[in-house]
Amino acid sequence: MVALVSKPTRVHPLRGLTPEEIKHAAAILIKVQQAKAADASKTVRFQHITLSEPPKALLMPYLDAESAGLEASDRPWVPRCARITWSHAHKQQDCESVISLDTELEVAHMDAKVAQHNGLDRDEVIAATIAILTDPNVLAEIKKFRLPENVTIQCDTWPYGTDLDSKEDDHRLIQAVIYARAPHNHPESNQYSFPIPVSPVYDPFLNQVIRIDPCATGGKDDGLKCNTVAPEIALAHLVENEYHSSLQKGGLRTDIKPLLIVQPEGPSFKVEDETRISWQKWTFRVGFNWREGMTIHDVRYDGRKVFYRLSLSEMTVPYGDPRSPQHRRQAFDLGDAGAGVTANNLSLGCDCLGAIQYFDNYLNNSVGEPVKVPNVICLHEQDNGIGWKHTNPRTDVAAITRARILVVQSIITVGNYEYIFAWQFMQNGAIEFETRATGILATSLIDAGKSSFWGNVVSPGILAANHQHLFCLRIDPMIDGVENTLIQEDTVSVPYSKQENPHGNAWKVHKTPFEKSSFADAEPQRNRVFKVVNEKKLNAISGNPVGFKIAAQPAQLLIADQRSTVRRRARFAEHHLWVTRYRDGELWAGGHWTNQSHDETEGVSDAASRCDNVRGEDIVVWQTYGLTHNPRVEDYPVMPVEIMTVTLKPADFFEKNPALDFSVLKRLSVHVGNTKYHSLQS
Amino acid sequence: MVALVSKPTRVHPLRGLTPEEIKHAAAILIKVQQAKAADASKTVRFQHITLSEPPKALLMPYLDAESAGLEASDRPWVPRCARITWSHAHKQQDCESVISLDTELEVAHMDAKVAQHNGLDRDEVIAATIAILTDPNVLAEIKKFRLPENVTIQCDTWPYGTDLDSKEDDHRLIQAVIYARAPHNHPESNQYSFPIPVSPVYDPFLNQVIRIDPCATGGKDDGLKCNTVAPEIALAHLVENEYHSSLQKGGLRTDIKPLLIVQPEGPSFKVEDETRISWQKWTFRVGFNWREGMTIHDVRYDGRKVFYRLSLSEMTVPYGDPRSPQHRRQAFDLGDAGAGVTANNLSLGCDCLGAIQYFDNYLNNSVGEPVKVPNVICLHEQDNGIGWKHTNPRTDVAAITRARILVVQSIITVGNYEYIFAWQFMQNGAIEFETRATGILATSLIDAGKSSFWGNVVSPGILAANHQHLFCLRIDPMIDGVENTLIQEDTVSVPYSKQENPHGNAWKVHKTPFEKSSFADAEPQRNRVFKVVNEKKLNAISGNPVGFKIAAQPAQLLIADQRSTVRRRARFAEHHLWVTRYRDGELWAGGHWTNQSHDETEGVSDAASRCDNVRGEDIVVWQTYGLTHNPRVEDYPVMPVEIMTVTLKPADFFEKNPALDFSVLKRLSVHVGNTKYHSLQS
Repeated sequence: MVALVSKPTRVHPLRGLTPEEIKHAAAILIKVQQAKAADASKTVRFQHITLSEPPKALLMPYLDAESAGLEASDRPWVPRCARITWSHAHKQQDCESVISLDTELEVAHMDAKVAQHNGLDRDEVIAATIAILTDPNVLAEIKKFRLPENVTIQCDTWPYGTDLDSKEDDHRLIQAVIYARAPHNHPESNQYSFPIPVSPVYDPFLNQVIRIDPCATGGKDDGLKCNTVAPEIALAHLVENEYHSSLQKGGLRTDIKPLLIVQPEGPSFKVEDETRISWQKWTFRVGFNWREGMTIHDVRYDGRKVFYRLSLSEMTVPYGDPRSPQHRRQAFDLGDAGAGVTANNLSLGCDCLGAIQYFDNYLNNSVGEPVKVPNVICLHEQDNGIGWKHTNPRTDVAAITRARILVVQSIITVGNYEYIFAWQFMQNGAIEFETRATGILATSLIDAGKSSFWGNVVSPGILAANHQHLFCLRIDPMIDGVENTLIQEDTVSVPYSKQENPHGNAWKVHKTPFEKSSFADAEPQRNRVFKVVNEKKLNAISGNPVGFKIAAQPAQLLIADQRSTVRRRARFAEHHLWVTRYRDGELWAGGHWTNQSHDETEGVSDAASRCDNVRGEDIVVWQTYGLTHNPRVEDYPVMPVEIMTVTLKPADFFEKNPALDFSVLKRLSVHVGNTKYHSLQS
Repeated sequence: MVALVSKPTRVHPLRGLTPEEIKHAAAILIKVQQAKAADASKTVRFQHITLSEPPKALLMPYLDAESAGLEASDRPWVPRCARITWSHAHKQQDCESVISLDTELEVAHMDAKVAQHNGLDRDEVIAATIAILTDPNVLAEIKKFRLPENVTIQCDTWPYGTDLDSKEDDHRLIQAVIYARAPHNHPESNQYSFPIPVSPVYDPFLNQVIRIDPCATGGKDDGLKCNTVAPEIALAHLVENEYHSSLQKGGLRTDIKPLLIVQPEGPSFKVEDETRISWQKWTFRVGFNWREGMTIHDVRYDGRKVFYRLSLSEMTVPYGDPRSPQHRRQAFDLGDAGAGVTANNLSLGCDCLGAIQYFDNYLNNSVGEPVKVPNVICLHEQDNGIGWKHTNPRTDVAAITRARILVVQSIITVGNYEYIFAWQFMQNGAIEFETRATGILATSLIDAGKSSFWGNVVSPGILAANHQHLFCLRIDPMIDGVENTLIQEDTVSVPYSKQENPHGNAWKVHKTPFEKSSFADAEPQRNRVFKVVNEKKLNAISGNPVGFKIAAQPAQLLIADQRSTVRRRARFAEHHLWVTRYRDGELWAGGHWTNQSHDETEGVSDAASRCDNVRGEDIVVWQTYGLTHNPRVEDYPVMPVEIMTVTLKPADFFEKNPALDFSVLKRLSVHVGNTKYHSLQS
C-alpha cells in the first residue's frame, strides 16, 4: 500500500491543474526520470501538463454529493493526477506519463511506438520558424523569386501529415509554408496573398531543415507538375488583399449605428467555486485542457442528471489537392495542435456583448513551468429571438416569450484559421453546440490566368484549396443515470391497407435500440433521429423512456478514397454517429497519437469494434459533423462565419415544455446621454 | 383601343392596394356583374381584393428607372390591376377576376371548375362557428359527454381536406374540431387539452351543419375503430395544461435579469416611399398580399440586381393519422387560409427588440370594404454574433467584426399554430429566410392508458398527431440580369491514378447546368449545392459565372404513399428543388385552388413539366424545405420554436468578402437609472 504524500486537495476534482500542481507534477516526473537517468532535468522536454480526470466510478459519487449540497470536506475523496505529454531531449521518443499528485508516483507510462508522435508545441514552433527563416538553402530558394529587398518573409508551420510511401515519418516533422508580407510591410498585412512556392521540411529533434519541397503552381492542364513558370516571374501577378480594417483602401462604412446590449442588473448566471455555473435550472462545470480546450461536465437540470461530460473530441481537415506536398495536408487540430493551446485571449477581441465573465487557465512551457492563459473561455447571455408564441384568435391575446440563452464560448486560432465554439444552454431544456468556422483560407500560388480542379482562385494568383472540416463531438450522457440506450428512430410510410392505412396518408416511427457498440449514418429521407434514453425511466405522460435527441445536419463524410491514408487516419469521420461503451480516458475520436498517424489507433472506430453491449449501459455517443468547403471568392481575404450546430434536445425527458413559467415582457427605461429610451426587457 | 378612365396612379406599382383602390376595384366588379345580373351588389361575395402585380416586362423598366434615380413621374407607365377572389352569394361558384383600375374593365375572369374552391375567409369562419355551436344536433352530441353545465365550448374550423371516395367535395366545406375550456373558464384557457371527439361538417354556402363525424379515440390495438369508450367517461382523464403565464400554477421564474437592446442613434435602415428599404448597400421593396403575406421585391446590392421577387409560395401540412376524419387533414395555409389574412398585429406581442418599424396593410371584408391590418410586417436590426475573426499569431492582434443583420418579419396564426417568417439581410451579401414553427399542436382525444402509432401522448388523454410541414420558397432571381442558369454542383471523389490522384485524397466539383425545366433532390453525401448563375458574366477573380447558391437542410419529403391524395395535392413537396421558366402570375407552388383540391393543378409540377428551356433564361427556382414533426411531450402545451433556414449566399458574385469595410468595435457609455454602463458597440 502506498502512502499519500500530499494532503487530499481541496481543489474541485474537475478544476484544471493549479500553477503549483503543474510545478509539482513536473518535479515528480523529473524525480521519476532521475531514477532512470542521472540528469533528468535536462533530458525531459515537457509538452503538456494537464489534469488527468478521475475515473467515473470515483468522480460520480463526488458529484452526487456536491449536487446534494454537501460541503467539499464531506464529499468522498477523489485522487488527483496530472497527465504529462513529454519527449526526451536527446532521443527521438515521445512519451506520456500519468503522475499522482497524491502519492508522487508515476501511475501510468506510455512510450510512443514507431510512427506515433505527439503534436507540435509552441516552443517548437517558434524554434522552427527561426531555423527555417535563417536557413541558407531556404533563403537561396526564396531569392530566386526576386522579391523586393525589404520584404518580410514569414512562415506557417504545418503538421507534416502522412505519406506511407516515404520513410521520413519515424521522425516528427514540420512542413513549412512560406509567405511574404505586402511591400508596405504593415504588421497586419495579409501574408496569404503572397505565397512563395517552396516548402521547407524541418525536423524539430535535429533543429534543422532537412529538405525543401517545391510546390506546384499549375492549372488544369498541368497535372501534378512543378516549375511550370520561371521563378523570376512567378509572383508578378500577386496583389495585396487585406482583411484588417486599417488597411481597407476604400474607406470604412459609416452608416451602421450602434446597437447596445445592456444588462443593468448584471447577468442571470452565477459562478461558484471557480468553475461551477448555475443558470435557469441548469448547473454544470466548465473544464479546460490543452487538447480539447473547453469541456462541460456534470450537466444537471433542476437536479436531474443529463450529461456527464460534453466535449469536442477531435477534428480533421483533409485537403483535396493531390499535388505534393499538399497531398499530405490533413490537420487534426485537437490532437496535433490542441484547442486549449490555440485558444484566444478573449479580451483581446470583442468577442461577445453584454455582461461577460471570463475564465483563465494554465498551460505550461517546455521546462515544465506554468503559463497563465487568460480569458480563454467566456460566459454570457444572449437574446435568441422568440422562444414560443401563441395568439388566441378568440381574444386576440398574444402570449409570447423571448428565448434567453447562456453561452460558454472559446475561440481558437490554428495558424490561418479560426473556430468559434459555443455551448449554448436553453431555457427550453435543449443544449446546442455551435461551431463557427472563420479566419483565412490556406492558400497556395497559381500561375497567372490558370484555374484548378483542386480549389478556387480567390485573389489574383491565389488558389484556395478545397477541403473538409469534420468534427467529432463526444457526448457522454447520464439521462437520469448512466444506464442509457441509444435508439435510432426512422419515420417510414405504412403500406396501403383497408385495416390500417386505407387512404395512404399514414406513417409510423420505427425505433431500433443499439444492442452492441457500433456506428450509424444520417438518413434525412427517413427523418432519422438518434435518441439517448433511459429505458428504466418512463415519461409519466407519454410512457416513452425519458431521453434526449441528438440533431445535426448530415455532413458529407470523408470524400477521400476508401484505401487512402486520409481515411485510415480518421475513421471517426467515415460515419455520422458512433456509440461505444464508456471507458475511463477514452476521449479522443481520432486516437491518442494523431500527428503523422498512419491509422486511427485507439480512436472511436477501435472502441466501437469491441462489440460491447451498449443497451442500458454506460454509453458514449460520438457525433461527426462538419462541411465540405470548396471556397467561394467571398471567403477571402477573411471568411464570413460558416455556422454548424449540433442540438441535444429533450425528447419526452420533461412532462411539458419546461419554458412556460415566464412573466410577460415589460418595458424598461434607459438613459443614453440626455435621452430616455424605452426598451423591451427580454 | 381602350381609353384610360383614371389617371396613371402615383402609387408605386408594388405598393399594396390603397383603401380607395380596394373600394374602386370592388365597385368595378359589381358594375361588371350588373351587366350580367340586375342586383349584382347582393350576389357578389368578396373574398380577397389584392394587388395583381404588373407583368415583369413592364415592371422591370420601371424598377430600373427607379434604381437609376429617376423620379416617379419620369418612370415608364405601369398598369394598375386588382385581383379579386369572390363567390356568388346565391350559387355554389367561386370566381376570380382581374380588374384594371386604369380602364375599369374586367381584364381576366376565371370560374372555378367542379372540385375547385377558394379558401375560407374570415367572415365565413365566424358564421360557421356560430352555426356549429348553436346547432341542436351538435349540442346533443356534446351533451353525451356530460361536461359540467357552465363549461364553454369552442370550435376550430379546418379546411375539409380531400377524400376522393366521398362525393361531398363539389361543395366547399368546413370540418370543425370541438373543444372545451377548462372548468375555471379563463378566456386564455388552453382548449386543446379538452378535445371532444365529435367533428361537425359545415357547408358555408348552405350555412348549416350537414353531418357530424365521430372521432376515433382508441390506441394501438383499436385499429380504425370509433366509440371505443362510453361517452360519459370518455373525458374523465383530461386535465388542464396551460401555456398562458397568468395560468401557471407553480409561479413564474424570477431569476432572469433584464437584457436590453438599445439603439441610441436609431436604426441604420432607411424606409422611403412607404415600402422601399435601404440598409448596408442593400435596397429592396417589401410587399404584402392576402395569400403570401409578406413578399420581397427588386433586391439589389450596391445597385447590382440580385433577386426580382422572393416569397413563401405555399406550404402543406399533412397529418399521419389514418382514422377518419383525420385522414383528410392536410392544410395548405397559404392557399386555404392566407399568410396575409392570418398575419399577426405585431404590436400586440413583443415580437422584436430594439428600434422597430412597422408596416400596415389593407385587406377587405365580404362586402368589398377595405379593412386595415396594422403592423403585419416589422423591420428591425439584430446583432448576429461574430461576423468574422482572425487573430494574427505573430502580433496577437485580433481583427473581428460583429455581424449586424436586417430582419423583415411577419408572424401568422393559423388556428392553433403559428409561423414566424423572417427575411434576414446580411452584410456579407447573404440573405436568409428563417421559419420558426411554434404555437399549439393539433390535438385529439385518446382513451386513458392507451398509446398510438399516429402520434404521441403529450398530456393526459391528449394525442398530438404526427405531421409534416413542407414549405416552398419561390426564388425569382436576377443575378446581374434575368438571364440566369441553375447549376447543380456535386463534390465527388477522383479515382486513384498515378497521373491525377496518386494518394487518393483528391476530389472534384461536378457542375451540371439545367437545360430544361425540371426538379432535383438534395444529396448531402455528395455535398450537392444548387447555384443560380449568370453565365454571361464571369467573376473577374475566379473566372466562374457570378452567382448565388441556395442552401437548405434536406427535409424528409412527403411520406404519404405515392398514389395517395396527400401526394397528388402537393406535388411540390415531392422534390427539394424545382426550376421553371418565368411566367407572369405563376406564383403558387401548390396550384391556384388548393382548398379541397384533388390534384396540384397549375402548380410547380405542371410548370416544370412544360420542359421549357431554362439555360440562360428568365428562371424561377422553388426550394422545398420543412420538417417531419413527430411531437415530443416538450412540444406541449405550447411548442418551443423549431427553426428552419434557407440561405441565399453569394458564390463568386463579389470579388472579395463584401463585409470587410468595418471599423473596429468601440465602447459606448449608457446610463440606466443612476448607473453608468460601458457597453460594446456592435
